[in-house]
Amino acid sequence: MTWASIDLNADLGEGFGRWRLTDDEEMLSVVTSANVACGFHAGDAATMRRVCERAAERGVRIGAQVSYRDLAGFGRRAMDVPPLELAAEVAYQIGALEVFARAAGARVSYVKPHGALYNRVVHDAEQAAAVVDGVLLADDRLPVLGLPGSRLLEAAEKAGLPVVTEAFADRAYTDEGTLVPRGTDGAVIADADAVVERSVGIARSGTVTAHSGQRIPVRARSLCLHGDTPGAVGLARQVRARLEAAGVRVEAFA
Amino acid sequence: MTWASIDLNADLGEGFGRWRLTDDEEMLSVVTSANVACGFHAGDAATMRRVCERAAERGVRIGAQVSYRDLAGFGRRAMDVPPLELAAEVAYQIGALEVFARAAGARVSYVKPHGALYNRVVHDAEQAAAVVDGVLLADDRLPVLGLPGSRLLEAAEKAGLPVVTEAFADRAYTDEGTLVPRGTDGAVIADADAVVERSVGIARSGTVTAHSGQRIPVRARSLCLHGDTPGAVGLARQVRARLEAAGVRVEAFA
Amino acid sequence: MTWASIDLNADLGEGFGRWRLTDDEEMLSVVTSANVACGFHAGDAATMRRVCERAAERGVRIGAQVSYRDLAGFGRRAMDVPPLELAAEVAYQIGALEVFARAAGARVSYVKPHGALYNRVVHDAEQAAAVVDGVLLADDRLPVLGLPGSRLLEAAEKAGLPVVTEAFADRAYTDEGTLVPRGTDGAVIADADAVVERSVGIARSGTVTAHSGQRIPVRARSLCLHGDTPGAVGLARQVRARLEAAGVRVEAFA
Amino acid sequence: MTWASIDLNADLGEGFGRWRLTDDEEMLSVVTSANVACGFHAGDAATMRRVCERAAERGVRIGAQVSYRDLAGFGRRAMDVPPLELAAEVAYQIGALEVFARAAGARVSYVKPHGALYNRVVHDAEQAAAVVDGVLLADDRLPVLGLPGSRLLEAAEKAGLPVVTEAFADRAYTDEGTLVPRGTDGAVIADADAVVERSVGIARSGTVTAHSGQRIPVRARSLCLHGDTPGAVGLARQVRARLEAAGVRVEAFA
Repeated sequence: MTWASIDLNADLGEGFGRWRLTDDEEMLSVVTSANVACGFHAGDAATMRRVCERAAERGVRIGAQVSYRDLAGFGRRAMDVPPLELAAEVAYQIGALEVFARAAGARVSYVKPHGALYNRVVHDAEQAAAVVDGVLLADDRLPVLGLPGSRLLEAAEKAGLPVVTEAFADRAYTDEGTLVPRGTDGAVIADADAVVERSVGIARSGTVTAHSGQRIPVRARSLCLHGDTPGAVGLARQVRARLEAAGVRVEAFA
Repeated sequence: MTWASIDLNADLGEGFGRWRLTDDEEMLSVVTSANVACGFHAGDAATMRRVCERAAERGVRIGAQVSYRDLAGFGRRAMDVPPLELAAEVAYQIGALEVFARAAGARVSYVKPHGALYNRVVHDAEQAAAVVDGVLLADDRLPVLGLPGSRLLEAAEKAGLPVVTEAFADRAYTDEGTLVPRGTDGAVIADADAVVERSVGIARSGTVTAHSGQRIPVRARSLCLHGDTPGAVGLARQVRARLEAAGVRVEAFA
Repeated sequence: MTWASIDLNADLGEGFGRWRLTDDEEMLSVVTSANVACGFHAGDAATMRRVCERAAERGVRIGAQVSYRDLAGFGRRAMDVPPLELAAEVAYQIGALEVFARAAGARVSYVKPHGALYNRVVHDAEQAAAVVDGVLLADDRLPVLGLPGSRLLEAAEKAGLPVVTEAFADRAYTDEGTLVPRGTDGAVIADADAVVERSVGIARSGTVTAHSGQRIPVRARSLCLHGDTPGAVGLARQVRARLEAAGVRVEAFA
Repeated sequence: MTWASIDLNADLGEGFGRWRLTDDEEMLSVVTSANVACGFHAGDAATMRRVCERAAERGVRIGAQVSYRDLAGFGRRAMDVPPLELAAEVAYQIGALEVFARAAGARVSYVKPHGALYNRVVHDAEQAAAVVDGVLLADDRLPVLGLPGSRLLEAAEKAGLPVVTEAFADRAYTDEGTLVPRGTDGAVIADADAVVERSVGIARSGTVTAHSGQRIPVRARSLCLHGDTPGAVGLARQVRARLEAAGVRVEAFA
């Protein structure tokens, strides 16, 4: 599948109080969609407000990066949260962010789970359904951003929510189009040129070279970039520049 | 000042996870306005959702009971929160509750600070202004419920927000109409009959007998009731019954 | 296996700030070992101090009831905590409790995991080893209280820590001596007389009637009682009285 | 007053989970006393363990940097914590750190309050007494590090605890020897050479040039250095080098 255009998303506002992590200002000049942390794994209220203001000024779309309630683990520890609690916690986070998005003249325009929750709802149908229930509590027309083929996107589609697929140019893919698990040799692609080239490939031809060397299709309306290290910001800039040079329109999904 | 009608408000949803405190079901059959805890001093997301659903079913108005971020101290420890942080934290809580109010077919209809924040903004103009800024971030037409003469209501009025005054039938008043500080002898009125009688006096004639024995005016559109002990619930019922028997319309403020 | 004596343990200090759950005073007059919550699923510092003082006054043994960091879920949501973090969190909790035990003239005398962590380390060898590592960081002679046959007790024994087995008189057992999972019909035994009788059977003959009706051996140096409801406290009293009437010495494990 | 030797202390381990702040490795090669965050304003358990291990390896003394419970505010927001709660929270933090200090073959050797608590107990006798009560719960011979003339050191001395005075080479002093409040013009001394020179003056002659230009005595057994920015680490190195070049023995207090 080929796209005339691609969305670039990144996790932003992932500090908490005194601590900073993501270079929000820089990344907001690169991405078209900002996954804003909502206070459960990162993101104090003042940071959420500031990121929403800056994103709105630049016309960057605001998404709710919802997470398990786990500041100590940065939302990276899978949790067996009962569905009713999880749905309510997802809705709570979306609502909290919405107030800052609106105050900035924008809206929460999509939802993307973070960290361990993102990984869990690839396979866990119960938690996937709970996340979707939480989204529906907040807004029954809110797009859900996630991995193609995930339980999450299945549940979202079933519930009538718009879904947005994403790809990772810096992650190795299996022949089946799933991500090679972190920890496996070669799972993360460190070479900047390779990442840039893969980004262009995904955006222009909808394909990527899998771990096996085979060319496989990758369905992705959005590319996920990272902004939590100085090198990452530079790489994100390169990706955007090369996409534009290759004639790809970099713009938020419709 | 006399009111043909009076609002009854109480703090609800003040459990957290496994812990329960307020008898939400019972109190929702007594009050006309529910101050719902928003997660900072109490109130997990699932509880917030449930209380909003029950309140909406019964036509009880939903208010955001905003607080300092202090679960360990139940929001009863005054905190020197910088204005920008406080405003953002107030807005965050209102937004989180709004999602559950809307999902239940209602809206957050007013804001009332809790505990140490409530007491602080009686006198602290800076924090009062910050709370008002937080309300304005969320909704510039949202009424603020508080103590007559408080810095909070002054700041709210100045900002163009509707203000709702409240009185406490179980607290002693000075001749100037302020509350006798807790800890002072006779500051809290334990006798149920006295509380009931004072409630009727406040609602019907807008007056109450002060600590000195003098009759003073009390400006109150709402009466604050308590629901965190079995005795308190029974007393709340008595107050409502006697108000109705005395011809007072018990209804939410306009 | 028969014991001339039995230990009675219960979870105590499981309030947090304004919230109360366990009837600590009452239960301390029944049990011989107090599993004191250490602040991660419940148990603020002031409560920990008070429970340690009361326990020491009554000669009740103090144990560290260690948990996942999860106040909102009361430690009942399993979490994939990496081993290094889990070990450190277990040690942190033991150390925090030790200060109050010592101040009361006692010591932390054993460790028992709580809730989802308790259940997880029945089967999960990695987390079981991490809990044991945490105990070893704190004290390499500290007994570990848990389920016979669990990965936890295996890891503790392998590390040279004393282990203490426990049984649940109000839970149904399989023929293999494991607990029938909650949610299964008949998993929890509600009948007070049956619980009392099973307690005596476990203490005197080291056997219990399994779910199938078959008589099976149960290895237990301690019986776990509950104290989080008024009924539970009464039942705990009955169990202790009947054990003593049956000639069982109720005393803390050596 | 002149000292043949001086202690250098710095706040360490002030990250939390995913977030880092202080350059612990670098600073441990400069200071002789490490104020280790204990989890209430910063400092997850795994970080506490690691810092204790590194400090013990280098022979750096370990102190408990106790704080208000305020991760979101980094312990910089003064809180009206009731004395019984504050004492218990202080003891809790000391106990938690002690487990890691002991596991590393060391001990918690002093206590220093952090941030808003540090500032509060300069003047607030009630909270100062509560902090001392907390220290006594943990260990009645534990030195307390603080500002000369503070209520904290008064209360500690009265309770028979050793006290250790400290000075800040990068802060302006009044003629009375108190710190010029932050926010006042010239309150913080940014010039590195001036800071180095003042450090040597404090250590060698026990005097410093006050804001007024007058030379005043400064009683300080320890100098507080900062390690939360790259520049700060370099400055700390310079201070130590110049102290040693000036013949001052840099060593932990006795």
